[in-house]
Amino acid sequence: MKTFIGLDFGSDSVRAVLVTEKGETLAACVHNYVRWAEGLYCDAVNNQFRQHPLDYLEGTEAVIKGVLAGQDAAAVKGIAIDTTGSTPCAVDANGTPLALLPEFADDPDAMFLLWKDHSSQAEADRINEAAAAWQGIDYRMYEGGIYSSEWFWSKLLHILKNNAKVRNAAASFVEHCDWITGVLAGNTAPATMARSRCATGHKAMWHASWGGLPPQEFLTYIDPLLENWRSKLYSDTQTAEKPVGKLAPAWAEKLGLSTDVVIGGSGIDCHFGAVGAEIAANTLVKVVGTSTCDIVVAPDVDKCVRGICGQVDGSVVPGLIGLEAGQAAFGDVYAWFRNLLGYAGEVSLSALEKDAAKLPPGAHGVRALDWFNGRRTPDADNALTGAIFGLNLGSSAPMVYRALMESTVFGARAIIERFRDEGIEIKSVAAVGGITRKSPFIMQLCADVFNMPVRVAASDQACALGAAMFAATAAGVYPDIDAAMKNMGAGFDLEYTPDPELTAVYDKLYLRYLEDGRRIAK
Amino acid sequence: MKTFIGLDFGSDSVRAVLVTEKGETLAACVHNYVRWAEGLYCDAVNNQFRQHPLDYLEGTEAVIKGVLAGQDAAAVKGIAIDTTGSTPCAVDANGTPLALLPEFADDPDAMFLLWKDHSSQAEADRINEAAAAWQGIDYRMYEGGIYSSEWFWSKLLHILKNNAKVRNAAASFVEHCDWITGVLAGNTAPATMARSRCATGHKAMWHASWGGLPPQEFLTYIDPLLENWRSKLYSDTQTAEKPVGKLAPAWAEKLGLSTDVVIGGSGIDCHFGAVGAEIAANTLVKVVGTSTCDIVVAPDVDKCVRGICGQVDGSVVPGLIGLEAGQAAFGDVYAWFRNLLGYAGEVSLSALEKDAAKLPPGAHGVRALDWFNGRRTPDADNALTGAIFGLNLGSSAPMVYRALMESTVFGARAIIERFRDEGIEIKSVAAVGGITRKSPFIMQLCADVFNMPVRVAASDQACALGAAMFAATAAGVYPDIDAAMKNMGAGFDLEYTPDPELTAVYDKLYLRYLEDGRRIAK
Repeated sequence: MKTFIGLDFGSDSVRAVLVTEKGETLAACVHNYVRWAEGLYCDAVNNQFRQHPLDYLEGTEAVIKGVLAGQDAAAVKGIAIDTTGSTPCAVDANGTPLALLPEFADDPDAMFLLWKDHSSQAEADRINEAAAAWQGIDYRMYEGGIYSSEWFWSKLLHILKNNAKVRNAAASFVEHCDWITGVLAGNTAPATMARSRCATGHKAMWHASWGGLPPQEFLTYIDPLLENWRSKLYSDTQTAEKPVGKLAPAWAEKLGLSTDVVIGGSGIDCHFGAVGAEIAANTLVKVVGTSTCDIVVAPDVDKCVRGICGQVDGSVVPGLIGLEAGQAAFGDVYAWFRNLLGYAGEVSLSALEKDAAKLPPGAHGVRALDWFNGRRTPDADNALTGAIFGLNLGSSAPMVYRALMESTVFGARAIIERFRDEGIEIKSVAAVGGITRKSPFIMQLCADVFNMPVRVAASDQACALGAAMFAATAAGVYPDIDAAMKNMGAGFDLEYTPDPELTAVYDKLYLRYLEDGRRIAK
Repeated sequence: MKTFIGLDFGSDSVRAVLVTEKGETLAACVHNYVRWAEGLYCDAVNNQFRQHPLDYLEGTEAVIKGVLAGQDAAAVKGIAIDTTGSTPCAVDANGTPLALLPEFADDPDAMFLLWKDHSSQAEADRINEAAAAWQGIDYRMYEGGIYSSEWFWSKLLHILKNNAKVRNAAASFVEHCDWITGVLAGNTAPATMARSRCATGHKAMWHASWGGLPPQEFLTYIDPLLENWRSKLYSDTQTAEKPVGKLAPAWAEKLGLSTDVVIGGSGIDCHFGAVGAEIAANTLVKVVGTSTCDIVVAPDVDKCVRGICGQVDGSVVPGLIGLEAGQAAFGDVYAWFRNLLGYAGEVSLSALEKDAAKLPPGAHGVRALDWFNGRRTPDADNALTGAIFGLNLGSSAPMVYRALMESTVFGARAIIERFRDEGIEIKSVAAVGGITRKSPFIMQLCADVFNMPVRVAASDQACALGAAMFAATAAGVYPDIDAAMKNMGAGFDLEYTPDPELTAVYDKLYLRYLEDGRRIAK
């Protein structure tokens, strides 16, 4: 029996699964990033979230060794990796992240800028201004029409503008998923390493129709500091079912694996999660964690969908258009409230949820906007912030918590409505991620607010499972990713159906949510 | 040496002071309302706040006995009382609050409706609608032009509409201050008991120019249930420096006092507090507690000031127009946040304030609206609610607390600006109440936000001290309240001056507060 390792780098930790070609999960392992857990290099108040490459390297070794413990290492035939994105980093001519060089070891600008880092808002604003003024193609057209501070070029430009030492030392920039994949495959040379279609197409304005990245002329128009940067990056990209190479000897030795192990193409976590959740047409796969990623695939999309994070040929399933949207904070909103209360004492979210669930919909008038980390979709605007309304002297912690939960689900509905407004049919929702299995209340809330059935993936590691499917396909065990999904999928074991009485109540509350949003956003 | 007892009924407790004719405070005593402390008869989520008359009677006895302990009872020559308001209650033909009758002992509608009870919002709306449609005098003209759910007629009508049993049993309604005064003076007969000019003028649309209460015709137009209610109430009112009577024998015996003790006229707490703080023209006296009451006196006001709580001849100092405004929640906003955090553990407001004080003005972008108990002034609107804006994942409890503190002080500034816009000059602020002595941070914030000096009264019982001044005047020791203020005043022992650098910063934040308010209130 052949086995495959899927690696999934999340915001706080990396997990690995060891899966057989028939889809049986033999082992799973999680490693929390050590420096990140200490809060190093971050400044939450200013939306700066940086991760040290050592956290990733240590995590890679730990989780692969973790899943191999007591297993047959010789059976492993492939490894594939997904990560958060856009999570880029400045590298030297060898493709080494600058923070791994002694002189940059403690410089946050020489580290990976985590997806949720919004310190580059001014640069995103400039990119949008330049793209709107540019005569000819609007290079944001396949990325929802609004360029975000969460994305590649905003972050690259922010670093170039604000740190001359890093600017002078940077030979290129890499995405997290490409870099770790390159490390395992033994090639991180900026000019030749594999670059993920998913990450580049959704986050870096790469599109085949204009020959890859936007032309240098446009980049220089955004900012003269971008001069020459097109050639420092890449022109070709690849979809994830294709192999990138084989395991580098040094890593094979370190991990006790063969140098014949195939390294599959990489991608962004939620896209792999959509595959792990056996995505199909007309189903929105919602990967729910600290934030959400909402993925739809369609054979043919005849327009540019407004206000989403992008539509990229082959970003999820090769041959189909992958459409991505998402919420910049979901579980993070709940964690924020727990942290707020944490000033007074420790409290569990499950206790809060239990008390909140006893309240009626609408939380006795308390309402919230879920934009605690800006708004990713619909219509990216990271300058927006969270809010709590309708407070009176009797408003309790469970009421506020219920309002926060409802607001995150209303935010989720706003994405579904946008897809529909733009002609993308959505008939059901498949949810994956920790919260989807830990919180029946939130899942039922989703069904009631969406007025659609919500199925929950049986695997609680759907992203890593998706990575294992890509590894199996890259290794040639399956001819395509559809066959891998069919043979390795874990299916769904929970389904929430809408309560017709509550859907009407939530319809009204949703309209109020939209009205609150309009008042704040204007 | 003659002595006087001032009684001050606040929202949570009653306090008494025993003061000599020269202003020396010999004793002070506080009693917390027992039933209230247990949360009985209240429903904070629905803004229902009721108080049982037994809490008042027990409190009266406890605090008078408290201040007399070890003192010369024979020296006591007068007692006067202030309370919150409008805090009315349905009474029988003897003037007995219905809740003191066995069949109504547990009926919240047969109790006092505390000032902050907003359950009568629908009735306030109807009164405003009727007053606006009425051909002829707008009876709200001396009460800021908007009738509030906190006030007498809204509450009376709410009870009549919602509780037929109480409606059928009610012979009249009384204000808290008049009832306790009547009890001590031995006359609570609705037709003949003394009625406070302050309470009736500010809260019940009583005005000499239209012969007292509004005409029955108008009342019936508001609602047919008000038929005959004008004659069930009163026509005359009296200012507080005049005696109401002498101590009733039963109470004299119970308290160990003489039946020669003069009972002075009554009033609303903050009006007495303004006297206790030696109010003078061009000074705004801010009585700061769970809510605030803001009092200005002026010899001559040639217009109806828009959006305040009223302007009444003699409501503070006889012969001057007393202008009242206020914030429906101030300390209550802080207590709300402590209670919210209390879900997780106990935390002190002083600890929170200490951490919040370390932050820069503007609390790293967190902003709030202080309307947790509606907006009293400017422009009463009790349907408004509190809100917190500008939240991101790094927003901490001290940041939120700082935003809440700033919002309460911005709310205070909005009142000052309204007085000025309406031609009432205000040159300085005199602050009284527990918070003004406990929290130097909030007082400095007031000075910086108001851009005016803020003096703090030396007495931490300014309301009760004001009551003692009225008692002394009613007993004939002083010819008028000015002389009582001069001889018995405790003065000011703290003064906060604005920091010119911060005033500019807060000017900008105040504009943002106004903008937030406009967005929410529309």
